[in-house]
Amino acid sequence: MTRKILVVGAGKSTAYMLDYFLEKSESENLQITIADLNTDGIAAHIKEHSACTLLTLDISNSEERQRAVSQADIVVSMLPARLHTTIASDCLLHKKHLVTASYLSDDMKAMNEDVTKSGLIFMNEIGLDPGIDHMSAMHIIDQIRDRGGRILLFESFTGGLVAPESDSNLWNYKFTWNPRNVVIAGQGGAAKFIQEGTYKYIPYHKLFRRTEFMEIKGYGTFEAYANRDSLNYREAYGLEDALTLYRGTMRKVGFSKAWNMFVQLGMTDDSYIVENSEGMSYRDFTNLFLPYSPTDSVELKLRHYLKIDQDDSMWGKLLELDLFNPKKIIPLKHATPAQMLQKILEDKWTLAEDDKDMIVMYHKFGYEIHGKKEQIDANMVVVGENRTHTAMAKTVGLPVAMATLLILNKKITTPGVQIPIKKEVYEPVLKELTSYDVVFNEYKVPYLGYNPDTVAG
Amino acid sequence: MTRKILVVGAGKSTAYMLDYFLEKSESENLQITIADLNTDGIAAHIKEHSACTLLTLDISNSEERQRAVSQADIVVSMLPARLHTTIASDCLLHKKHLVTASYLSDDMKAMNEDVTKSGLIFMNEIGLDPGIDHMSAMHIIDQIRDRGGRILLFESFTGGLVAPESDSNLWNYKFTWNPRNVVIAGQGGAAKFIQEGTYKYIPYHKLFRRTEFMEIKGYGTFEAYANRDSLNYREAYGLEDALTLYRGTMRKVGFSKAWNMFVQLGMTDDSYIVENSEGMSYRDFTNLFLPYSPTDSVELKLRHYLKIDQDDSMWGKLLELDLFNPKKIIPLKHATPAQMLQKILEDKWTLAEDDKDMIVMYHKFGYEIHGKKEQIDANMVVVGENRTHTAMAKTVGLPVAMATLLILNKKITTPGVQIPIKKEVYEPVLKELTSYDVVFNEYKVPYLGYNPDTVAG
Repeated sequence: MTRKILVVGAGKSTAYMLDYFLEKSESENLQITIADLNTDGIAAHIKEHSACTLLTLDISNSEERQRAVSQADIVVSMLPARLHTTIASDCLLHKKHLVTASYLSDDMKAMNEDVTKSGLIFMNEIGLDPGIDHMSAMHIIDQIRDRGGRILLFESFTGGLVAPESDSNLWNYKFTWNPRNVVIAGQGGAAKFIQEGTYKYIPYHKLFRRTEFMEIKGYGTFEAYANRDSLNYREAYGLEDALTLYRGTMRKVGFSKAWNMFVQLGMTDDSYIVENSEGMSYRDFTNLFLPYSPTDSVELKLRHYLKIDQDDSMWGKLLELDLFNPKKIIPLKHATPAQMLQKILEDKWTLAEDDKDMIVMYHKFGYEIHGKKEQIDANMVVVGENRTHTAMAKTVGLPVAMATLLILNKKITTPGVQIPIKKEVYEPVLKELTSYDVVFNEYKVPYLGYNPDTVAG
Repeated sequence: MTRKILVVGAGKSTAYMLDYFLEKSESENLQITIADLNTDGIAAHIKEHSACTLLTLDISNSEERQRAVSQADIVVSMLPARLHTTIASDCLLHKKHLVTASYLSDDMKAMNEDVTKSGLIFMNEIGLDPGIDHMSAMHIIDQIRDRGGRILLFESFTGGLVAPESDSNLWNYKFTWNPRNVVIAGQGGAAKFIQEGTYKYIPYHKLFRRTEFMEIKGYGTFEAYANRDSLNYREAYGLEDALTLYRGTMRKVGFSKAWNMFVQLGMTDDSYIVENSEGMSYRDFTNLFLPYSPTDSVELKLRHYLKIDQDDSMWGKLLELDLFNPKKIIPLKHATPAQMLQKILEDKWTLAEDDKDMIVMYHKFGYEIHGKKEQIDANMVVVGENRTHTAMAKTVGLPVAMATLLILNKKITTPGVQIPIKKEVYEPVLKELTSYDVVFNEYKVPYLGYNPDTVAG
């Protein structure tokens, strides 16, 4: 009997997911309906596949939406997170399973009782981060526990970066996902974490000066700055007694120190509108944040303000961005500094046609076992194939696709609104991911309780 | 005929005001009613004065409040700003004038039409800052305009400090007003101002590193950091065409550089609650903001983090506050970093029994007249007498008291909701203030369009 999968939203992270479904459409008897307001962007080999149906759907049209949901066996929502609740309500009404890669919202959580009663599975956060991070972490945490160990330390880092072969600028960085999220990263409150049992707080303006280093064999040294709340998932992972909990974002070494220049200047501020932003030159934008002088150059004022020498690599990074160019113009009306900076960065950091992206993930697990303290580090590197088949699309889309099939095939059976931290979910998904070269390497390292390779300046 | 003044709120800034009213009670035929929830704190010589009546008033009791207002000829509200609207509504209902030293709220502004129609005067912002700053600035601005000049530059700075004879700590600072406002000063958005026609923005974490210096004869050098919006009052003062507008807060030189240490550490953050704040030692508080280390001392970590040497005067300032003391305890439950820091500072910065405070104000007026650019600087220093008769109480209370009498005596006659920027208000008040040693000294200085004595580090 044919099983019908409804995919709502055909955005840029769906390439691998759709290929996966279509490859298995015959052996697994799948029929895929792709519903989006605009289906033009969908690749020809998908559109023309016999197992695929396109549906032009206005998500705000309840009748059309309900009809589509009612005809499916399972629904995959790749819409922006705020639209999931509408789809989830439809799924509950028509008794359909649901899979999303987005953060579990409070609205979604509130449906748990009804979903469980109906024997349905609403699987959330089964992309990359959140997603593969949960699964790979719980896989190792459960193994340690099964051996009788007690977790003391858990640190987890993810980065969306540019692949080494496409890494062609001084920042070792290009936008591989939503640029806005990169520009405003870390804002909205101090970062909080625990180290060896003591709480630690880092204000935004110090966030990019308090980094940790980590090595990945064959890919060199990376750094990570702290995410806002490293204590998320403490209960979900059962880590209430862990002494150290730290979650962070990975970059190539040197990015954060350079990014801190923007933070210090105030260029990442998204809380106010700059007067006369439209038509402002890059140079005038930079000068907004520097003291007035009738004679001194913008260049010298900036170097003095940030105390950087002309032969400092930080200086070259600023020049590379054309930050002092009086001819380049920002076309944005009523823009915040963050929006203006984003525009400047997009000039230089947009992926070229043949550029490849790269996903890195790094976990540390410290634990006590039979009176001894030990540590396992695990990391994963995934490099993209091209602009549509990115590492991001692969690591977000494949877990979603695999979970969808596992639910259809009744390999995942526990009902409820959930995230992928149960063995019946992470075991088959992680196993299948390895055949797509999404692989974690594990190493035993000495347990220290902290990272000796930290920067604090 | 006796004129009845109702003073609502008998807080710490009322000493001079009440003395002023009582001194003039006979010659001016005044009867003063002081209404407060608790009248115990009022000094004996006031309480027992024949022209004075005490009224225990619960401001939330509408009937009692209305009765008190209806019996007065004019009402002075010294309540917290948010309570003024209630009193203002009563005044409108019973057709009474109103005087306050607080910022003009939108609610109050909205009453303007009704107040004007009723021929009433609701005078706001007639204390020190706002108050004396408006009056002294408009006094000189109007003089320059009367001579045919056009204002190019207006800068205005105020500081509530400790008097030189009581200046006994390394910070040259004690709390003379609400400590909380000092701890969270500058938060909530970037500071914005104009210099020589260009907008400038300073993020909070750089605010205390972008100061201006200014000299006051006999009192040495002061510094000022920018207020959040220097463009307030641009329209009210008629300065739409001015090239430079800057408002700031004055401190003794070195305070801001040292205060910046707290900002950099994150200790002034008021946006989150610290875990286990109650019973935390000063040392543990400091360590919250420093990287974890199993061996390094809190002292060395801080010096390294902020890059200060042990023989730096900044270091002495931290030691003076006992910031590394493991025995001193913060007793606050569920406290923010800012609240905890305030507690630590209050230990050391509270005025002693015989300490005196000091108010400083500094204005700069740049203007073009007959084709030439000129500048006038004007400044004021007021030193307090003792703990109740502070310079703050004097400079806040006397203008309120004087305006009250001027309204009663029909010397101020223009009706409406207003601030003291009209000649009929500022001329008599400033003149009378000189007899209380509240005096501005004016100097001609060269016009530069900017301050060459700026710090930017």
